[in-house]
Amino acid sequence: MSEAPAMDQTANSNDSQGSTTRRSGGRAGRAALRASHVVDRVPYLTRTLAPFEIASEETLAMIEHTADTVLAEVGVEIRDYPEALPVFKAAGADVAGTRVRFPRGLCRSIVSGSAPASYVQHARNPANNVVIGGNNTVFAPNYGSPFVHDIDNGRRYATLADFQNFVKLAYMSPWLHHSGGTVCEPVDIPVSKRHLDMVYSHLKFSDKPFMGSVTAGSRAADSVELARIGFGGDLHDRTVMTSLINASSPLVWDGTMLAAAQCYAENNQACIITPFILAGAMAPSTSAAVAVQTLAEALAGMTFVQLVRPGAPVVFGSFASSMSMQTGAPTFGTPEPAIVLYTMAALARRLGVPFRSGGSLTSSKLPDAQAAYESANTLQPTVLGGVNFVLHAAGWLEGGLAIGYEKFVLDCDQLGMMTTFVRGLDASDNGVALDALLTNPPGNHFLGTAHTLANFENAFYRSDTSDNSSFEQWTEDGGLDAAQRANALWKRRLSEYEPPPLDTAIDEELLAFIAGRKAELPDQFA
Amino acid sequence: MSEAPAMDQTANSNDSQGSTTRRSGGRAGRAALRASHVVDRVPYLTRTLAPFEIASEETLAMIEHTADTVLAEVGVEIRDYPEALPVFKAAGADVAGTRVRFPRGLCRSIVSGSAPASYVQHARNPANNVVIGGNNTVFAPNYGSPFVHDIDNGRRYATLADFQNFVKLAYMSPWLHHSGGTVCEPVDIPVSKRHLDMVYSHLKFSDKPFMGSVTAGSRAADSVELARIGFGGDLHDRTVMTSLINASSPLVWDGTMLAAAQCYAENNQACIITPFILAGAMAPSTSAAVAVQTLAEALAGMTFVQLVRPGAPVVFGSFASSMSMQTGAPTFGTPEPAIVLYTMAALARRLGVPFRSGGSLTSSKLPDAQAAYESANTLQPTVLGGVNFVLHAAGWLEGGLAIGYEKFVLDCDQLGMMTTFVRGLDASDNGVALDALLTNPPGNHFLGTAHTLANFENAFYRSDTSDNSSFEQWTEDGGLDAAQRANALWKRRLSEYEPPPLDTAIDEELLAFIAGRKAELPDQFA
Repeated sequence: MSEAPAMDQTANSNDSQGSTTRRSGGRAGRAALRASHVVDRVPYLTRTLAPFEIASEETLAMIEHTADTVLAEVGVEIRDYPEALPVFKAAGADVAGTRVRFPRGLCRSIVSGSAPASYVQHARNPANNVVIGGNNTVFAPNYGSPFVHDIDNGRRYATLADFQNFVKLAYMSPWLHHSGGTVCEPVDIPVSKRHLDMVYSHLKFSDKPFMGSVTAGSRAADSVELARIGFGGDLHDRTVMTSLINASSPLVWDGTMLAAAQCYAENNQACIITPFILAGAMAPSTSAAVAVQTLAEALAGMTFVQLVRPGAPVVFGSFASSMSMQTGAPTFGTPEPAIVLYTMAALARRLGVPFRSGGSLTSSKLPDAQAAYESANTLQPTVLGGVNFVLHAAGWLEGGLAIGYEKFVLDCDQLGMMTTFVRGLDASDNGVALDALLTNPPGNHFLGTAHTLANFENAFYRSDTSDNSSFEQWTEDGGLDAAQRANALWKRRLSEYEPPPLDTAIDEELLAFIAGRKAELPDQFA
Repeated sequence: MSEAPAMDQTANSNDSQGSTTRRSGGRAGRAALRASHVVDRVPYLTRTLAPFEIASEETLAMIEHTADTVLAEVGVEIRDYPEALPVFKAAGADVAGTRVRFPRGLCRSIVSGSAPASYVQHARNPANNVVIGGNNTVFAPNYGSPFVHDIDNGRRYATLADFQNFVKLAYMSPWLHHSGGTVCEPVDIPVSKRHLDMVYSHLKFSDKPFMGSVTAGSRAADSVELARIGFGGDLHDRTVMTSLINASSPLVWDGTMLAAAQCYAENNQACIITPFILAGAMAPSTSAAVAVQTLAEALAGMTFVQLVRPGAPVVFGSFASSMSMQTGAPTFGTPEPAIVLYTMAALARRLGVPFRSGGSLTSSKLPDAQAAYESANTLQPTVLGGVNFVLHAAGWLEGGLAIGYEKFVLDCDQLGMMTTFVRGLDASDNGVALDALLTNPPGNHFLGTAHTLANFENAFYRSDTSDNSSFEQWTEDGGLDAAQRANALWKRRLSEYEPPPLDTAIDEELLAFIAGRKAELPDQFA
């Protein structure tokens, strides 16, 4: 790098080059500066880039055909939910005992015929409404972990206090668009009652969109009632919850999940219909077979939702992990789940429904290099594949058994990077910077040029967890690793947390409903 | 997951479904098993997937047009190499003093007209020959670091012993295709002589392809002579070195680099012509401007090579980093360099020459979560963008100032994952596994099915650095993080290293040449 020209020299040479055909560094630069101040926080990502495709149209059609073969010949088993059988039968399925087989094409025609291609999930704060589907991507935090991890205390059971901490951290992150659902399991609260505390925490400590309980039909109904109170009225004109309905792969849908799905669909609330597949165990080990089975299971589940209420919002979910063939443990961030993800995303686009997959997944027990490589290797396909709803986008550790405080902060920073990435290449006059290129002499640096000064503040994504300083400065600052820096960040954020406004009457009504339900419900811890 | 059927039951039901239209689990499975044994080690990757595209054809054409404007109006400065000026002038460039301006389209027509779209770089072991260009990707290690890092000793100056250690580790990794060049700077050897030790080490301790010295024309000539001895004869019929020629951005080519490039081109050895750009300092801060300038600089450099020897192999290089606008430090693994990489890869494809970029880059000082996130965020675009030659694919730390032993091992594992990923979706009969899908009853796992058993050994990429075991098992194993596991791995590998065969007469001739040159050269340490 050579010596710099004095700043005013650069400005002068800019002036002397003024021409109508050239880009103006000055005015365009200032406009860019103003524009770049708004780009940071968005309620959800809108991608401008075509998704990365891994399979040809022929291969995708073959997978669809094979999934229909599985649905027709094997079908799905409906476990402990006889209510669903006449629903399927009336739609034209072949029901024999608890086995439901679908004539070729039936599920696809039902789902394509009535499920919306995208829908708005309303948030308590309308500025946080999200559009799920299309070219949009919504990031939601980790889901379902019984343990929490931080580098001070290691791993321990999660509590309601942890749950609320993560709701607060998600609320404060500009890069998470959604408050999630069971961000961790508050195991200090009876399982029969904790859904009430979880939904209340999302309504009380955040104003971003959230998810309801799915562990029983009655708990889904409680979630709907709490949401109705929280949103101050009838929900039938708007979807305010997107909840997670998992298959019992291979090819089983159980009564707990179907009852919750039925409750949500009847109330026009959204369901994510997700086969959760550990390849090699719950499906064959090969990726194409995982894709076939995932499509078959998801089609059956989405069909049920559309039969319960045609037009109810539904998301095609896929959660696929690879497997350690030595130990049977699930593995994440490996090539095979990425291949499955890209394939399923393309299949969801062909079906015309929103798609859920991916996240920041890892089997590491710590926020170490393994956790980061594996998470990045999941998040990249998630974004490049065009996933619409991303559960587990922040915090996931240990194959989902734990949510990590430091991991959460580190992942959120990565989501911020993706927010910048999906905007793609800025090929505007300001992006091309022709004046700067033509007026800066060879060998002279650009630090002081008008274009650089105009773009200074927002030229690059600013990480809040990376250390880019010199080795000497980094050493002087304590020689901390990323996890240690993240540790300070989550503590500072929690100390700075301020809740969003919540109408006192609504808060009291929520608490009264919860007190009433808790009095009715037995204490159950399993 | 439900109870498993006994294994023989599964086998029976497989048999009972035998049909010519269905995929056979047994025979196809065994064929897959045999096939999957060969897939591991390949001399270079051949991608089957179309690259991810970030810019439209219109935008790419606009960038090309703008680069031609820069080449015509500003041109490039040739510093300390008057020999190049008449070469450019004779080709039709406008030469004024040391400034060379190119009529629109001149560089493109010269480069497109004679540079090969791909070439073979021969290795001492022909099984390790690589094809650079086309749909192929070659991974080479870190380059140029004066420091080394390991978690036992922290950061220290690199020595020739470190250099040789990394040559050995690269030789032993199935996922690195190339031995690289200055994998680290052996600062214990005078700068005037170390090129001899480096080239000798690549020839002696590895039989993979490698890079020559570029720090002076005479050192390039020494590299050629050593290669000639090492390969046992004339090199003019084959390219055995691919060496790194960097621009002095913005828009300067200096005499050291041009002299080395000229020597290599005259000997039909390959040059990577790389603008190395810290956006905001050596170019404007915006990605489109970085792309314009990179293209202009690379075109000028590649034009020189083609004028020296039409048809000499040349690689279009791009190395772009973003910048901390607070400190001016380079940053890596951020969104902007990824956007530049995808753009430049597309521009190189349009030009029809091989492309070099990317790697496993980070500004972290440690093999921590930051290092891994940033490296993965560089490696993913590297692979998805279709980079042909990937320098810095393993080991890079601290913005290139250090190479890390643990980082090297961790990165190699990621390269292995990419080796599996680029194969894409296996949509063969074995991949789809229809028999397994049709014969396995709902709710029953696939662990014992014939298809799973047939695909058992190679169903999934096996990481050698990740820990996927249970928290309890991991704790019992010492609760190590990824860096600690990698520490044990590189030590074990070095202890197991065995050199490839090298003809004794050749070895003696190499050593005699080096002794002669060392006697002639003064000791210089800077």
